Amino acid sequence: MKKIYSVQNTKIKDLIKVYQKKNSYNFFVVEGVKEFEMAIKGNYFPTRIFICKKIFYKYNMIQSFDSITFIISMKIFKKLAYRENSGGIIALFKEKKYMNQLKNIEISNHNFSLTLILDGIEKPGNIGAMLRIADAVDINFIIFCNMKTYMYNSNIIRCSLGSLFTRNIFMEKIESIIYWLQKNKIQIITTGFYKHKKAINLYQTKFDHNNIAIVLGSENKGVSNIWLKKANKIITIPMFGNIDSLNVSNAMSIIIYEIIRQKNYAI
Amino acid sequence: MKKIYSVQNTKIKDLIKVYQKKNSYNFFVVEGVKEFEMAIKGNYFPTRIFICKKIFYKYNMIQSFDSITFIISMKIFKKLAYRENSGGIIALFKEKKYMNQLKNIEISNHNFSLTLILDGIEKPGNIGAMLRIADAVDINFIIFCNMKTYMYNSNIIRCSLGSLFTRNIFMEKIESIIYWLQKNKIQIITTGFYKHKKAINLYQTKFDHNNIAIVLGSENKGVSNIWLKKANKIITIPMFGNIDSLNVSNAMSIIIYEIIRQKNYAI
Repeated sequence: MKKIYSVQNTKIKDLIKVYQKKNSYNFFVVEGVKEFEMAIKGNYFPTRIFICKKIFYKYNMIQSFDSITFIISMKIFKKLAYRENSGGIIALFKEKKYMNQLKNIEISNHNFSLTLILDGIEKPGNIGAMLRIADAVDINFIIFCNMKTYMYNSNIIRCSLGSLFTRNIFMEKIESIIYWLQKNKIQIITTGFYKHKKAINLYQTKFDHNNIAIVLGSENKGVSNIWLKKANKIITIPMFGNIDSLNVSNAMSIIIYEIIRQKNYAI
Repeated sequence: MKKIYSVQNTKIKDLIKVYQKKNSYNFFVVEGVKEFEMAIKGNYFPTRIFICKKIFYKYNMIQSFDSITFIISMKIFKKLAYRENSGGIIALFKEKKYMNQLKNIEISNHNFSLTLILDGIEKPGNIGAMLRIADAVDINFIIFCNMKTYMYNSNIIRCSLGSLFTRNIFMEKIESIIYWLQKNKIQIITTGFYKHKKAINLYQTKFDHNNIAIVLGSENKGVSNIWLKKANKIITIPMFGNIDSLNVSNAMSIIIYEIIRQKNYAI
């Protein structure tokens, strides 16, 4: 482990460039002990690790990375870190390929599978919360389309508690997703405004298909029209109040856990 | 409707003081057409209304408030508003009394009632999302304790889509809440870490009591210990992944909708 004494050090300058997304090498920043552990668990590869000795104590976590670990002062750490209570570790990781990878995946019709499709979700906090639910119920595939945010956005990482790293993530065009779903005989279920003529109440819906994809749309616009056309089922969550929509991650948790309940996976 | 031409106008200066919470008159700011409508619906009383003519068009909404409505320029509006796409309206409202009001409420044991108790929740976005769920399922009483945030925080208003205004909101000490719950024979249900010895799976829980209170705790610490002691039931949401907790508003939506499903209110 080498020490770095100045923010003028090129490794710190490189790190700042990644923070500012001014690098073109497909690296991203991970802050925090928990998040670092999840990235390693998800087979992400760290290229540089910066630790602040005054805060960091989990040395066994990084012992195999000695040659790429650098010690920085509290002053430099505070200058860099978005969050100060993350355990004193900042690491650079290499991105995984998540674009146009879906075509390589084949699904068996004998087992239950759950796919989540997120269409144009904007808020990193929502995306993070949804990844956390996806981890909780072990969703097999998460496919983003019309993505408005950088995948490795620090807030997505944080709000997902690092489960971004341990899930199978894809980013695709809608057409490719639909082609893949149909080829693999996956039922498409989406949410619609309750006045949609095909819409049925979630609690009157039988999730009896083996392979299910849930499509959820952006906070403002909902899902793209094509999903409403292609959907095998359009469901609505019953509501009795003054407003007619829920936060998208809340909608997801209600739907996903109803599926899990029906499949008896939850007991 | 009078025009205001300068940010030096005392009414604008007053408004800025409320934005900065430097007033002691218990006013708060509401931005947005939808939010304004919800505040009126919830019987809140506007004291001053500022509209930007270039954006605002819902004149019938404010016609009975002509004497307290002021027209401001785009320049002043932009300087004041947190959000620009909220419909060109900023209003000052008077706070309602929400502290120590619970003792006046009596609950009948003949009807189903749902009470939500939020213990130390910190993030305005989460509080807002939870109020939105509370609106969706028509939760009767929402009681805050150990509140870390200003009740009329702009983000709470926004993320709740204004349903903060149409719900019965209380802020109390834990001891007063427990006294009230016991006096009204309300069953206390809280969430616990899955390793808690009394904890049972949500989907093995029968919500057969008529009056139910759900207690949810802060993002980091969970509920205060006293809730675990006083709870009639401690439930856990089944999870199968790498992480062992959900975002608190997601946990709430899963639990609340399972209750609603069991009560057959959802169909």
